[in-house]
Amino acid sequence: MIIVMRKGATKEQCIALEERIREAGLEPHVIHGTERNVYGAVGDERVITEQFFEVCEGVERVMPILAPYKLASVEVKPEKTAIQLGSSLIGGQRIGIIAGPCSVESRAGIIEAAQMVKEAGAIALRGGAYKPRTNPYAFQGLQEEGLEYLAEAREATGLPVVTEVLSPEGVEIVAKFADVLQVGARNMQNFLLLKALGNTQKPVLLKRGMSATIQELLFAAEYILSAGNPNVILCERGIRTFEDHTRNTLSLSSIPALRERTHLPVLADPSHGTGHASLVGPMSKAAIAAGADGLIIEVHPHPEKALVDGAQSLNPQQFIQLMKELKPLAQAVGREM
Amino acid sequence: MIIVMRKGATKEQCIALEERIREAGLEPHVIHGTERNVYGAVGDERVITEQFFEVCEGVERVMPILAPYKLASVEVKPEKTAIQLGSSLIGGQRIGIIAGPCSVESRAGIIEAAQMVKEAGAIALRGGAYKPRTNPYAFQGLQEEGLEYLAEAREATGLPVVTEVLSPEGVEIVAKFADVLQVGARNMQNFLLLKALGNTQKPVLLKRGMSATIQELLFAAEYILSAGNPNVILCERGIRTFEDHTRNTLSLSSIPALRERTHLPVLADPSHGTGHASLVGPMSKAAIAAGADGLIIEVHPHPEKALVDGAQSLNPQQFIQLMKELKPLAQAVGREM
Amino acid sequence: MIIVMRKGATKEQCIALEERIREAGLEPHVIHGTERNVYGAVGDERVITEQFFEVCEGVERVMPILAPYKLASVEVKPEKTAIQLGSSLIGGQRIGIIAGPCSVESRAGIIEAAQMVKEAGAIALRGGAYKPRTNPYAFQGLQEEGLEYLAEAREATGLPVVTEVLSPEGVEIVAKFADVLQVGARNMQNFLLLKALGNTQKPVLLKRGMSATIQELLFAAEYILSAGNPNVILCERGIRTFEDHTRNTLSLSSIPALRERTHLPVLADPSHGTGHASLVGPMSKAAIAAGADGLIIEVHPHPEKALVDGAQSLNPQQFIQLMKELKPLAQAVGREM
Amino acid sequence: MIIVMRKGATKEQCIALEERIREAGLEPHVIHGTERNVYGAVGDERVITEQFFEVCEGVERVMPILAPYKLASVEVKPEKTAIQLGSSLIGGQRIGIIAGPCSVESRAGIIEAAQMVKEAGAIALRGGAYKPRTNPYAFQGLQEEGLEYLAEAREATGLPVVTEVLSPEGVEIVAKFADVLQVGARNMQNFLLLKALGNTQKPVLLKRGMSATIQELLFAAEYILSAGNPNVILCERGIRTFEDHTRNTLSLSSIPALRERTHLPVLADPSHGTGHASLVGPMSKAAIAAGADGLIIEVHPHPEKALVDGAQSLNPQQFIQLMKELKPLAQAVGREM
Repeated sequence: MIIVMRKGATKEQCIALEERIREAGLEPHVIHGTERNVYGAVGDERVITEQFFEVCEGVERVMPILAPYKLASVEVKPEKTAIQLGSSLIGGQRIGIIAGPCSVESRAGIIEAAQMVKEAGAIALRGGAYKPRTNPYAFQGLQEEGLEYLAEAREATGLPVVTEVLSPEGVEIVAKFADVLQVGARNMQNFLLLKALGNTQKPVLLKRGMSATIQELLFAAEYILSAGNPNVILCERGIRTFEDHTRNTLSLSSIPALRERTHLPVLADPSHGTGHASLVGPMSKAAIAAGADGLIIEVHPHPEKALVDGAQSLNPQQFIQLMKELKPLAQAVGREM
Repeated sequence: MIIVMRKGATKEQCIALEERIREAGLEPHVIHGTERNVYGAVGDERVITEQFFEVCEGVERVMPILAPYKLASVEVKPEKTAIQLGSSLIGGQRIGIIAGPCSVESRAGIIEAAQMVKEAGAIALRGGAYKPRTNPYAFQGLQEEGLEYLAEAREATGLPVVTEVLSPEGVEIVAKFADVLQVGARNMQNFLLLKALGNTQKPVLLKRGMSATIQELLFAAEYILSAGNPNVILCERGIRTFEDHTRNTLSLSSIPALRERTHLPVLADPSHGTGHASLVGPMSKAAIAAGADGLIIEVHPHPEKALVDGAQSLNPQQFIQLMKELKPLAQAVGREM
Repeated sequence: MIIVMRKGATKEQCIALEERIREAGLEPHVIHGTERNVYGAVGDERVITEQFFEVCEGVERVMPILAPYKLASVEVKPEKTAIQLGSSLIGGQRIGIIAGPCSVESRAGIIEAAQMVKEAGAIALRGGAYKPRTNPYAFQGLQEEGLEYLAEAREATGLPVVTEVLSPEGVEIVAKFADVLQVGARNMQNFLLLKALGNTQKPVLLKRGMSATIQELLFAAEYILSAGNPNVILCERGIRTFEDHTRNTLSLSSIPALRERTHLPVLADPSHGTGHASLVGPMSKAAIAAGADGLIIEVHPHPEKALVDGAQSLNPQQFIQLMKELKPLAQAVGREM
Repeated sequence: MIIVMRKGATKEQCIALEERIREAGLEPHVIHGTERNVYGAVGDERVITEQFFEVCEGVERVMPILAPYKLASVEVKPEKTAIQLGSSLIGGQRIGIIAGPCSVESRAGIIEAAQMVKEAGAIALRGGAYKPRTNPYAFQGLQEEGLEYLAEAREATGLPVVTEVLSPEGVEIVAKFADVLQVGARNMQNFLLLKALGNTQKPVLLKRGMSATIQELLFAAEYILSAGNPNVILCERGIRTFEDHTRNTLSLSSIPALRERTHLPVLADPSHGTGHASLVGPMSKAAIAAGADGLIIEVHPHPEKALVDGAQSLNPQQFIQLMKELKPLAQAVGREM
């Protein structure tokens, strides 16, 4: 940590700070500046938060030096992590597309969707059984019935299944049916859920929260990793800004920025990231060009009849066309698809 | 709903839309514009989301007319709701201050804090037993032990106790010990938690999410209300913006704006809303001037020794002084304290 | 500056950095950490930007220590600055209210407005002659004719006049008629305009840009101060966020935060800061409670006929009522009005 | 416009609104809803702002139907506009890269840079002669001397020159030397500057403001177009959000969203859009994949010696390598380079 003292901080305040630094198991090191003194607190500062020093009298500002996550960092594990998804890998050379409807609406519907996305080249099926909805009066998903239909769709197609889990106590049942457990943006900092997911070995698809920095996303991953589950897939799905032409602002720079900081695979979700079907294609291409390891795309056999998020869903023709267009793009950035 | 057709939408698209409007139980009503047609869908549109119409071909944009929450709205209940907190009311004529440390750290500490804030005029004690922490390696609270200490502090002082609950399954135990169940900003859209809280009758202090609109806050309240618990207290605690001089941007206009839309009481949290003890006083005053029904303030007997959030905690002297300064302000806006 | 080296930075990179630090006229000082080295560059770093060091190989991050503005800072001038406005002071013990219509629309209208706001207790008249409008087809103000009407309103009432200037070449004419030259939010970083204003001695009312940090606001003030004009009044007028219940998010914490950093007076603009007349009253009170030295409020004799911004304008009755309500508030925070 | 009345609006208020609609040259059309009435105001509403109706008593909300810009819209001109830049076109089939240093620092330096970027395949040279700087004490550019050096670089290489103009009175001199006049993000709503640029026929490169919606960007373009200059090139350069891993958040969805709304060419600036050289490559690729017509990239012969923005500048090797990598990407989206 770097601790900047106020101009005019007293000698007593400096001594008290030095003691506090030692109390934290760190070593104080002072730089006498022209206007104020600055302390370095040397050692593994990750055990301490800035606030430990901010409260000391005479302190103006505290700046951490080390990124406080460990297991997620490239410093601990420089080589990229690839995670098995059925017969495919997410995070390897090949770009993986996960596709399917926002929510599971019927047995026939999800099987039809699964067959369609498989044929078009998707490596996994997405579909929500438990739907977190802003409006309490809106459709909340088929729940356990939806999980069963997803499992049937997997049997029918061989595609692994990705679906959302909403609470710690839901982990067991969702893990029983699904291949990948998704954490939605609203739950990225539901720490009890993260810990519960750390106790399984199933891959977790962790979506970035709407107002989360990428450091906070990596911290959320660290919760899962440090509880014992190494299979975490990150997903950029858009942040909340003042922009009004999209539902969220898909911040694609997070992809290369995460790549510099973590070994975990990174996906993008251009469907929630834009909210408009017409923007999904361009932003899918852009995400791959930015270095994403894959995409998660909403596709619905009949978007105009979708119970949830139809406006951002591609129809089968659009999805098949997009999959064709993505291939040369993947190659252009040295990947396969 | 108002549904704006694209320029050049076909007659068939218009007819299909009209059918879809009727399918939703609403009545179509067309306005033939100079450049495009606009439809009104008349009836109780709250059962339908915009997306139900956005997916129709030829539709450019859909704009809802009615605020989609009901029980929380002033239209359903024009008179203000006041909620009992021990021997005080939140939402009445008198402004109520809830105060205490960020987290419960020891039996002695929380009792000392309770006595101090009571003496200074607080109507309830706050203190976290379960702490949601961004960093998995940081102190996560004393958990159930903390709840017991809170209960002891209540016995010692008579102050009702406000503490956070993190998950649906935690509701029972927290409700056993606490008087008010707090939903933190990160959990504002943890819908299973909201539903579980709707099944108790204990007051719920619902904090606004870091990137939540006030409509989303009211929807979150509606989850609790519609599940059967009418005792919801809203709390503005700051939103995430580009600003870097505070931890969050305390958006005080939400207070009068909520007042125009809802009968529920509204508090402000100037501690998390700023992150700096030196800003807590001015923003406490500003919140009351803006019409808040009360404040929730972090106070710690020894901020420099606090395990969590010391930098934003007032010390006893600061808190006592602030309470004195708040009184004339409350009177200046026609309230008591 | 604090310069953090990458883990594994070479000895050569460290030596090159040390040379660069000396090249900047500063003195290098190294802290050998457990994982990486950190350099302090000691001396007056304000002549250098972070980028001067960020480009060096092996550097991970650069953190400035000193606030880079000088003349605006409390460190250079600890005592508050009060600025003469006609017979009143902005920044003294007394809170000053500047009021008037968004734009000057007619001679009779502005004189009527001036008389009304004076009677209600305003210390200055505001009114736009040159209107920056997002839409090129919207009313752009009466221009020089508007300036003349403002001058007539001053003669009729004795109120000093505040009006916006849009470009460096406009400074002369606006300064000829007006008492205070206003810089609008969109022009906060129009540096040529700021320099031109620095060459006058007329007070400048500098509005915070919609996406400006308070450090950037102080830098903008520094442009004016360093060019020779000490009479700068700052104004919080709302920032752009994801919120949709107001036109902007009035960030009142900027007021006490500016007070900690600068001696310049600080106003708030609750009219542009909210965009809704019904929110102007509560936010006016909140701004004063937060420590504002005054307010600039839009008032129109007939808001429903205003050419610009009628929806956020108070009518005379509302303004007179608000002025009455503000007085006890000012007293409650130890000020007068 | 759609005008939503409050619940309980009186008959008189409705009649008054109808009159006001007619006063605006529009035709009222009422939809009687179950809870409130809604009016359509039929006709060319672009002459009126929402506020014209918002001020009427009984009105709750006003929603415009038509996008208020005209000349910039695809409805007025469906076919894409391509703009001549030296011997190249921006907005045609071929993707154009504009490159060069942030600021012109010396005659030799800019000529060296021009030769390098030309050889690597750039179609134009960028370089700032007038630099808008946040810090008044920072280097402000070589000014007119810089313009002369740019002209020499053009002579030496044949590359057209893009440089920023800061004020209306600067347009003449900059237009004398430069081929494309750039409007920086801070000046996007400097309406006098926009009007002055509308009076030339030189292409204008208009950067999106840091907090501008894409509608506001199109309005800014409309200022230039409506003053008579059809040669406007738009540029996404990042918006200000809470993110802290980049200097700005490059919002690439603006590219396809602009394409749906306007015929004007759209560039991206991955240098300012990220602030870090290591992110420029991935985001350049992403921008092209998203449909950009070109890029403007900061390249410096010796970034570590750059006076401005070195940390985001590519060095020649990096730029040459990136240009090679962009070609297959352009082809993958059906473009050339």
